[in-house]
Amino acid sequence: MKPPAHHTLPIGTGTTGTRMESDSMGWVEVPAEHYWGAQTQRSLIHFSIGDDHMPKAVYHAYGYVKKAAAIVNQRAGLLDAQRATAIVRAADEVIAGDLDSEFPLYVWQSGSGAQSDMNVNEVIGNRASQLMGGTLGTKRPVHPNDHVNMGQSSNDTFPAAMHITTVLEINEQLLPHVDQLAKVIRDKAVAWVDVVKIGRTHLQDATPLTVGQEWSGWAAQVHDARARLADSLYAVYRLAAGGTAVGTGLNAAERFGEQISAQIAELTGQPFVTASNKYAAQGSLDAMVAVSAGLRGLAVPLMKIANDMCLLASGPRAGLHELSLPANEPGSSIMPGKVNPTQQEAMVMVCLQVLGEDSIVASAGAQGNLELNAMRPVVISNVLHSARILGDACEKLRRFSVEGTELDRAKVDEYVGRSLMLVTALSPTIGYDKASAIAHKADAEGTTLREAALALGLSVADFDRIVDPAAMVGHPWRDLGLNQPDDNHD
Amino acid sequence: MKPPAHHTLPIGTGTTGTRMESDSMGWVEVPAEHYWGAQTQRSLIHFSIGDDHMPKAVYHAYGYVKKAAAIVNQRAGLLDAQRATAIVRAADEVIAGDLDSEFPLYVWQSGSGAQSDMNVNEVIGNRASQLMGGTLGTKRPVHPNDHVNMGQSSNDTFPAAMHITTVLEINEQLLPHVDQLAKVIRDKAVAWVDVVKIGRTHLQDATPLTVGQEWSGWAAQVHDARARLADSLYAVYRLAAGGTAVGTGLNAAERFGEQISAQIAELTGQPFVTASNKYAAQGSLDAMVAVSAGLRGLAVPLMKIANDMCLLASGPRAGLHELSLPANEPGSSIMPGKVNPTQQEAMVMVCLQVLGEDSIVASAGAQGNLELNAMRPVVISNVLHSARILGDACEKLRRFSVEGTELDRAKVDEYVGRSLMLVTALSPTIGYDKASAIAHKADAEGTTLREAALALGLSVADFDRIVDPAAMVGHPWRDLGLNQPDDNHD
Amino acid sequence: MKPPAHHTLPIGTGTTGTRMESDSMGWVEVPAEHYWGAQTQRSLIHFSIGDDHMPKAVYHAYGYVKKAAAIVNQRAGLLDAQRATAIVRAADEVIAGDLDSEFPLYVWQSGSGAQSDMNVNEVIGNRASQLMGGTLGTKRPVHPNDHVNMGQSSNDTFPAAMHITTVLEINEQLLPHVDQLAKVIRDKAVAWVDVVKIGRTHLQDATPLTVGQEWSGWAAQVHDARARLADSLYAVYRLAAGGTAVGTGLNAAERFGEQISAQIAELTGQPFVTASNKYAAQGSLDAMVAVSAGLRGLAVPLMKIANDMCLLASGPRAGLHELSLPANEPGSSIMPGKVNPTQQEAMVMVCLQVLGEDSIVASAGAQGNLELNAMRPVVISNVLHSARILGDACEKLRRFSVEGTELDRAKVDEYVGRSLMLVTALSPTIGYDKASAIAHKADAEGTTLREAALALGLSVADFDRIVDPAAMVGHPWRDLGLNQPDDNHD
Amino acid sequence: MKPPAHHTLPIGTGTTGTRMESDSMGWVEVPAEHYWGAQTQRSLIHFSIGDDHMPKAVYHAYGYVKKAAAIVNQRAGLLDAQRATAIVRAADEVIAGDLDSEFPLYVWQSGSGAQSDMNVNEVIGNRASQLMGGTLGTKRPVHPNDHVNMGQSSNDTFPAAMHITTVLEINEQLLPHVDQLAKVIRDKAVAWVDVVKIGRTHLQDATPLTVGQEWSGWAAQVHDARARLADSLYAVYRLAAGGTAVGTGLNAAERFGEQISAQIAELTGQPFVTASNKYAAQGSLDAMVAVSAGLRGLAVPLMKIANDMCLLASGPRAGLHELSLPANEPGSSIMPGKVNPTQQEAMVMVCLQVLGEDSIVASAGAQGNLELNAMRPVVISNVLHSARILGDACEKLRRFSVEGTELDRAKVDEYVGRSLMLVTALSPTIGYDKASAIAHKADAEGTTLREAALALGLSVADFDRIVDPAAMVGHPWRDLGLNQPDDNHD
Repeated sequence: MKPPAHHTLPIGTGTTGTRMESDSMGWVEVPAEHYWGAQTQRSLIHFSIGDDHMPKAVYHAYGYVKKAAAIVNQRAGLLDAQRATAIVRAADEVIAGDLDSEFPLYVWQSGSGAQSDMNVNEVIGNRASQLMGGTLGTKRPVHPNDHVNMGQSSNDTFPAAMHITTVLEINEQLLPHVDQLAKVIRDKAVAWVDVVKIGRTHLQDATPLTVGQEWSGWAAQVHDARARLADSLYAVYRLAAGGTAVGTGLNAAERFGEQISAQIAELTGQPFVTASNKYAAQGSLDAMVAVSAGLRGLAVPLMKIANDMCLLASGPRAGLHELSLPANEPGSSIMPGKVNPTQQEAMVMVCLQVLGEDSIVASAGAQGNLELNAMRPVVISNVLHSARILGDACEKLRRFSVEGTELDRAKVDEYVGRSLMLVTALSPTIGYDKASAIAHKADAEGTTLREAALALGLSVADFDRIVDPAAMVGHPWRDLGLNQPDDNHD
Repeated sequence: MKPPAHHTLPIGTGTTGTRMESDSMGWVEVPAEHYWGAQTQRSLIHFSIGDDHMPKAVYHAYGYVKKAAAIVNQRAGLLDAQRATAIVRAADEVIAGDLDSEFPLYVWQSGSGAQSDMNVNEVIGNRASQLMGGTLGTKRPVHPNDHVNMGQSSNDTFPAAMHITTVLEINEQLLPHVDQLAKVIRDKAVAWVDVVKIGRTHLQDATPLTVGQEWSGWAAQVHDARARLADSLYAVYRLAAGGTAVGTGLNAAERFGEQISAQIAELTGQPFVTASNKYAAQGSLDAMVAVSAGLRGLAVPLMKIANDMCLLASGPRAGLHELSLPANEPGSSIMPGKVNPTQQEAMVMVCLQVLGEDSIVASAGAQGNLELNAMRPVVISNVLHSARILGDACEKLRRFSVEGTELDRAKVDEYVGRSLMLVTALSPTIGYDKASAIAHKADAEGTTLREAALALGLSVADFDRIVDPAAMVGHPWRDLGLNQPDDNHD
Repeated sequence: MKPPAHHTLPIGTGTTGTRMESDSMGWVEVPAEHYWGAQTQRSLIHFSIGDDHMPKAVYHAYGYVKKAAAIVNQRAGLLDAQRATAIVRAADEVIAGDLDSEFPLYVWQSGSGAQSDMNVNEVIGNRASQLMGGTLGTKRPVHPNDHVNMGQSSNDTFPAAMHITTVLEINEQLLPHVDQLAKVIRDKAVAWVDVVKIGRTHLQDATPLTVGQEWSGWAAQVHDARARLADSLYAVYRLAAGGTAVGTGLNAAERFGEQISAQIAELTGQPFVTASNKYAAQGSLDAMVAVSAGLRGLAVPLMKIANDMCLLASGPRAGLHELSLPANEPGSSIMPGKVNPTQQEAMVMVCLQVLGEDSIVASAGAQGNLELNAMRPVVISNVLHSARILGDACEKLRRFSVEGTELDRAKVDEYVGRSLMLVTALSPTIGYDKASAIAHKADAEGTTLREAALALGLSVADFDRIVDPAAMVGHPWRDLGLNQPDDNHD
Repeated sequence: MKPPAHHTLPIGTGTTGTRMESDSMGWVEVPAEHYWGAQTQRSLIHFSIGDDHMPKAVYHAYGYVKKAAAIVNQRAGLLDAQRATAIVRAADEVIAGDLDSEFPLYVWQSGSGAQSDMNVNEVIGNRASQLMGGTLGTKRPVHPNDHVNMGQSSNDTFPAAMHITTVLEINEQLLPHVDQLAKVIRDKAVAWVDVVKIGRTHLQDATPLTVGQEWSGWAAQVHDARARLADSLYAVYRLAAGGTAVGTGLNAAERFGEQISAQIAELTGQPFVTASNKYAAQGSLDAMVAVSAGLRGLAVPLMKIANDMCLLASGPRAGLHELSLPANEPGSSIMPGKVNPTQQEAMVMVCLQVLGEDSIVASAGAQGNLELNAMRPVVISNVLHSARILGDACEKLRRFSVEGTELDRAKVDEYVGRSLMLVTALSPTIGYDKASAIAHKADAEGTTLREAALALGLSVADFDRIVDPAAMVGHPWRDLGLNQPDDNHD
């Protein structure tokens, strides 16, 4: 069926002032320039808590749900083509963000997200009615519950929208930023693969490694965390849609769950499937708790890396200063010339935020009673927020700090020369106890290791052969999965 | 000295396009319609992470800091009257929120908040220069560092601004909402002081109490939490201002800390004083961690109370339903006629959020190195957010649910009649073991307690005298601090 | 080579009083009846904090590390057969728990676990020396560092021991308990597959489902959480051993990492491999953070299920009481005959503990500097503890509560009969708005749904045909993956 | 009345094998050598979860409760003198720890702690019966419920015991350790009051301060945290005892709450009073959540201080090494001569543990339903554990690290000489912008600040007069509340 001509109506009610809208509790005055209806308006009045609005991305995802439902319902013969087409058109506008201003509700609302669901139903209902020549507020020809919400409940569609928006945010926004950061870290590791530096454990001098080896560890951490995060999505690909009120699928067509999930998969290009057990899908938030752990699993190494960079860049005159970070802005309102590791600090704060938000998600996941875990808005709000700030922080840290980080070779070399822990290489030859005696002697007397070793009877030849930092770092190229150039003996 | 006439210039740069501004790193193009300068612009570029902006309330508080500093510096003869007056005038505009659009920075920035500090210095500097007839971008006659920031560092003023905004938010917004909620809960307790109901422990039937006693417990919890929160502010009244870069007060006038704190106290009407140890005040966030615990200490009882209300209102037909909550909106997009405890759910979600944000604050407080805990923006962002959503949630819960909550007396009475735990009153007379036997018999045989008791040999007279629910509730009036009307024997 | 005869010496030093032992810092008096040496003794003195001892399971795992190292070192020609055999023998005793009393150290010690490593080196060294006829305290013929610790550092072996003990605890203790619990829950779901009950969302009456469907949701939650937990081990199978001090493998033989991991895999029967990047493996605790998320991911659904059971068993006279839990003990010291859901409460407390311990692990994982995350003891202590209490709590909950849980069919049926939410089935026929009107009328007037529906014009035939609870529950058998008996049309 | 002679019976049942004990559910076999009865035995069977036993300190506190109850009940004429005396005697043995082996139960049990309460009732009941010549297991002449538990419920006495043990642990164990640590830190601050060092903010070089000023900040942090912790006890001094089952005081004598609290205050020497609202005291854990925040409030600064010490002691050759910590043990099993900041690491791990345990307490506090928060054992377990490990870690850190910490003066002086941030002192004279130019020049060219300043036109005289580190540190003596010796101009 060809969609009717009036479907090209531009967005806009064309009126101002107020309009009456009704729901099962009666009539409510709503601003006439908006598409939303009575229940949205009631929620606006009753739940203006803070300034935390349900993220627009949740509504975009909801657009997919409503569009897919209309297609499936039409196919099942439950929804006529004209209504279905109008709903699809309105849903497309929701997906595109063109109706963003119609979704004013707060995070803090019904724990099922029912008010945001009704907001979507009302907006799509009115917009679709308008497209079909109807009058806003009459629920004709498109009724928010009977048509837009056909075969659905907030209890199964809000979870579905949560999953869709989570998948899109992580796969399309966060992971690409992580990949780029990982790549730049690895590039640095390769660039500095054979620069020998002193290692530090417990912040105390340890045996040497190369700068490239150190950075390879960071690269591996980010790489592994990225893999874990991607894996954590697997249960998020399972959608509750089709379970309706309590999981039994009451009022939905047979196999509605399978069909709407397939439709959503097609629309989004993501591998969504129907959840095999709807009681678990609606009664729990376990899949969201798992993906939150995936986000946290990224924050944990990023915080460590950022802190490591701060340490290594400390100084410039009274710190370690092996690294020189780009100076993006003056560091102090009082100390002229000061430059601070601000990108790293922003990242650390973001990571702390993500760890805390993850604990909120876990606590909320452990709440919930019987057929519904009614802690959904707080969960999606935190998961999307964590994903967003992690992604942005990765991008900023990469562009404005990691890419421009330089080595202070003089400092790096100086520390290698000084360290007492090179003594470790002597252990296999002279034993741990004698090696200790050398290190203690050098430390106590403030001499070099070499001086102490010779004083305790080691021969010059042995010392110089064994205590060679470059020979202590193993296989830096191999550690990076690379062949060492001009080096066949490795 | 009379302020010059041009001080009446309205806010606005009167230009569009861009303008060049400089800092110690060179020149930067900024939007000409804004007052901010080079460092603000740099931060905007480098730190656009998520959508989390430094709360405007932090800038309002910063207005007090800059105003007080100008007054103190003028008084000390370090700042001339004309510049001081212009700075004070611009700071007043900041305090009033008239320059809110000039503070665009993000939460995720320098861990000291230095960029927000410089944003304030630049805006006040340019605005004050404008008021004095200067040209934006020239830093003349008012220089952001030399004049607006005189005697200050981000390291002491950002902590001060954090403390000021925290005190104002809690004392002026949150606590009044808490007080009103506590009052309404207590009013209900008084109204239902002598309605006997069955108690429940472990969700299992227990001995009776009155509805008023139950609500008195909630009122006491809120009351105590409010007191604890107010107490938690005591270290927040101590301001770091005067410590400058590392706590020593370098570049600030003698006794600048005492004077600026006194000035801020006068301007805000809050009992601020100078922190006795600036190294602790700048190196730690301990006072903020303590106030966050105060906020959490309010969330904990509010979550319990909200959950209790959900339980007591469960039903209406297949739940406890001792309480009947106001129906503010339809509860379900699929189940007609359903009404849900949505205000309570919003409160529970808010409380979970606050608990999580508190853990972020504590973790951030435990970070920090040496002379600075550079986790400040994440801390103030979470503390202000927690305070705000708690306050709003208290107001909404009160207005839209607690005030309109009614008793379902039929249900309340029915449960009292049925309960087996009234047997407890028999214990002192017949002993725990015999009383147990009666309860077990009634439970096993599905009879009333009375039937079981008589079957096991208790006399009718004894049973009816001892097992009197109304006699088991102790002193409900006294528990509320009231005299029982017409009752001299209590 | 045949092991010498003296290798059959029973465990025991055969002396009392004290003995002198030495390390690189000098001589220390140790209790003569113990095998431990100077460094263990120093740690005992300096770190007696609380009563938290490093779990014995860590030492058993360490036994595998030391045994495998000796085998690999012997094979590489670095360790003579006699010493290797003695070390293997002593390590076997450690693995078997026969030397448990030799490992007295506390959790709160060096962040690398170095003191526990040296405890193992000293005990195995002395025991092996004893087996070879040496004198305790002489470090001859087996030296704790040069022989027992050959090719190793605490920095790579403590992480390895952590991973080994985590894998064994989860795979051999926890998962079997989870499986048994899941099975019993599913058995109940099957037993009650077609018992129709009222659903509840937001604790408010909702549409019906079967008891079996409700329990199937719990079973699915536990099943999914178990799968996630098992998956979370994959990075734990990667061992840091071979990296030695900072990841470069200094002082270890070529390919030592690959060989010792293969040896450990053979000894334990678990698929351990060498970590491909040792800098990440030693500098981070990311794999442990991930497995902790797996444990938390189990606690979250268990807490929900336990709380659901408490709710459903509430009463018996003034609660929901759809379930009747086994009475294992008197519930109250004052209320005779009271029975409480104590197994569920224990489980909820265990879950709260696990959630908190998980947040400790995540925080500790985000600490750590450069070549070492020195927060290892606190992490292994919490992970093992969480795994242990979760496993035991699953076993107790299953045996003492879930297995004996019965339905209170009278209650279950009564609620179905009363509920107003059966009205939902009318929506597709008469529309959401009319259905709402019926429900509201019944609620307001305290009538049955049928009465209200007929009063509003629905025909008796329509009502009785459509509003049939048993027809509203979808496909309970299919939801359990079962064929419905005697039912070919499903 | 004089206590009968048999009250001198030594502890011990004098038998082995088993004995039959009964409760309201029937007979149970218990080990004959123990005093506990049927309910303890049932709990042992049903709740052997992990290895977490209810802390003995809880039982010692319970001894005070039972003793005080017996005294008050006797005084009220409800309990005869002989039984009261026997109960008091047995309770004294509990308080003294002489019956510790009689309290074998686990933390994970009834959420009210009822099983531990009954354990106490059974042990005191049997012991008191024995003292009076009765036979174990007969509950005669002293019955665990009717006499030992007279006027009590687990619901009011377990909270009371929690409060008592918390107060004793904190006031008698933890705070003294904190005070000693604070004193030693302050002593160091005084000793190094005028040693000028370079400050560091964001880990970047900043303006100078003295070592004494830096340590004074730590001292102030500990001092303030100690005060906050002591304050956090105020609601813990309020006891629920007297509320019995649900807060109404059913079955307790009039004013029993006031009297037992006064008695407990007298016995313990701590200012306990009766809780004014028993419904809040029993329905919530808010007072415990507050004291947990107090513990966390101590962990936060201790973690910062420990981390600061690690940083300042880093090296010795490739770190900051301003501090030299005592070497208590060899630091590495592979690196000879290595010394690590292990006391600080233990403290950091303890602090992370405390932060996590605090979040458990807060979460548990937010649970609970209606007349009881049944999350008590998990709360007392975590609070006592946190207090204990914090106290012990303070003691160990002080004795084995802080007391022996020395300055590396050469390093301290070297950094001051090098730093560019001394330029800050020039700002008030030459302006922020010119001062910046000097610092940037020196940094870029690797020169001293002096060289750069002179090159940019500053006079030698001006530079040397203004850029004087010792003149930049303000008033170190005053910061410590001391008069500067031989210095009248301060």
